Amino acid sequence: MYDLITIGRSGVDVYPLQTGVGLADVETFGKFLGGSPTNVAVAAARHGLRSAVITGVGADPFGQYVRRAIRGFGVDDAFVHTIEGRPTPVTFCEIFPPDHFPIYFYRGEHPPDLQLTPSMLDLDAIAGAGLFWFSLTGLSQEPSAAAHAAALSARTSALKPGLTVFDLDYRAVLWESRAAAHEAAQRMLPRANVAVGNLEEVETAVGVRDPEAAAQALLDAGVRLAIVKMGPEGVFARTSEESALVEPMEVKVVNGIGAGDAFGGALCLGLLRGWPLERTLRFANAAGAFVAARLACADAMPSTSEVDDLLNGASS
Amino acid sequence: MYDLITIGRSGVDVYPLQTGVGLADVETFGKFLGGSPTNVAVAAARHGLRSAVITGVGADPFGQYVRRAIRGFGVDDAFVHTIEGRPTPVTFCEIFPPDHFPIYFYRGEHPPDLQLTPSMLDLDAIAGAGLFWFSLTGLSQEPSAAAHAAALSARTSALKPGLTVFDLDYRAVLWESRAAAHEAAQRMLPRANVAVGNLEEVETAVGVRDPEAAAQALLDAGVRLAIVKMGPEGVFARTSEESALVEPMEVKVVNGIGAGDAFGGALCLGLLRGWPLERTLRFANAAGAFVAARLACADAMPSTSEVDDLLNGASS
Repeated sequence: MYDLITIGRSGVDVYPLQTGVGLADVETFGKFLGGSPTNVAVAAARHGLRSAVITGVGADPFGQYVRRAIRGFGVDDAFVHTIEGRPTPVTFCEIFPPDHFPIYFYRGEHPPDLQLTPSMLDLDAIAGAGLFWFSLTGLSQEPSAAAHAAALSARTSALKPGLTVFDLDYRAVLWESRAAAHEAAQRMLPRANVAVGNLEEVETAVGVRDPEAAAQALLDAGVRLAIVKMGPEGVFARTSEESALVEPMEVKVVNGIGAGDAFGGALCLGLLRGWPLERTLRFANAAGAFVAARLACADAMPSTSEVDDLLNGASS
Repeated sequence: MYDLITIGRSGVDVYPLQTGVGLADVETFGKFLGGSPTNVAVAAARHGLRSAVITGVGADPFGQYVRRAIRGFGVDDAFVHTIEGRPTPVTFCEIFPPDHFPIYFYRGEHPPDLQLTPSMLDLDAIAGAGLFWFSLTGLSQEPSAAAHAAALSARTSALKPGLTVFDLDYRAVLWESRAAAHEAAQRMLPRANVAVGNLEEVETAVGVRDPEAAAQALLDAGVRLAIVKMGPEGVFARTSEESALVEPMEVKVVNGIGAGDAFGGALCLGLLRGWPLERTLRFANAAGAFVAARLACADAMPSTSEVDDLLNGASS
């Protein structure tokens, strides 16, 4: 039994050890665990949640690393599948604080994390998890899209009601068109009860960029909680009963990549604990700020007490 | 007017800064200029030859780096084309001295260096170069194969006779089948006058692995000089008039990758200067040993006097 299971991307982040310079000038790189749903599971595990990630890796040394790193962060690797003939994806980035962090994917046309099939899934484990987290990218290709559909059917038909979070994670280069991403989002929104995304992502999903209107459109599409990350404007959330707006935290940003995954893992904690909406948002927001102030992503995910300390420090 | 022009692969080599460990355990990486024909041009430039490389790079920061590095090594970048929508290739390796150096390509299915078209070529420059160097990999996909055919037509129809070297460079993962690579090699061997390859490569090209028989088969296929690199057994070469065998040099190997390109650049020097066969082979062999004893590839290419020093030291 898992508190949460995520599904989707994994890989190796090969990130510059020098910040503020372009890739043309970077001299050395470090190697980190990457892939948004994978790092959400890591972030959640840091809060003491029993986590697993469903993903695929290549039959290569980088795939061994990803599996080992997942386990090293206390996430169950039982659902990490090794896919022959598909190299483990690699991602480079440039780090230009405070707000420019371009990403360069080397995923190949058919990365292993999109080779997941329905028959690979443990549907009992998926149905029984307290929370299930999936992302838009997982719907960008078959057979992964079919695997997602099977997993979401297992969630919606389960007797025990659970949380299903749709991360609207939209990476334009991984789609044939934005219209295709929009259609995929529309198809799956009714099967989730929480949706989370930044302004670009909610616009892709529902065609509206204004945060209040986008949140309402997400509710209309079927979720019960819509969360819109507005960057320097903070985070806005809406349910049928209430709205909440949380201001961004003042931190010196080192590397903004990974902040969203820290936010996600912390969001899982608040949702699973049944915290009030504003407390959940404030906690998740602080977890994101914690990681943004650090170079690493997976390696920098905060524990619950580290987030609390940051929140208390900020309010004192 | 160029002493030599090479055509083919370029990219970024992201190589471990720790040797003797697999990629799963490597902690940091350095960034180097990569791609065999590119590094052959670099190696030749170190010998004072006026060199250029015809290649394609992505419209991205790594592409800027490749272009800048080529120029920095004294190679003309006038024929480096920027290809939109095709990321600059990246290559990882593992360094297990003395003889195990696995390579992991992240080239995508349509890398920029295979997007070269006949219309991109400066056929006058190609026809007029003292030496033209191409590799089997450039024949693995269109439109690159057509560009190679156009370049080789310009060579064979030129009034001034010149040297055309076919590097049998065979990377199995870059081909649909070994049979396809064999056919491509057979098609182009009559247009070259020098062929060079290791045992695996000559077997791919002519179906024979025995060095003497393979060299003869290469001569029968149309070249005037066939060179077979036999690793720990040295280098064997044959023309219609003579044969030569050069023993390997005794060096402490740090990273065998790049030795072949150093060999190639030095081979160009010997061929252009009209040195006797055995002197050419001994010189090229020593250049390869020089680079094998160092971690870097492009950055470690020796000057002529450095090769001579190594040869003199070895014979004293």
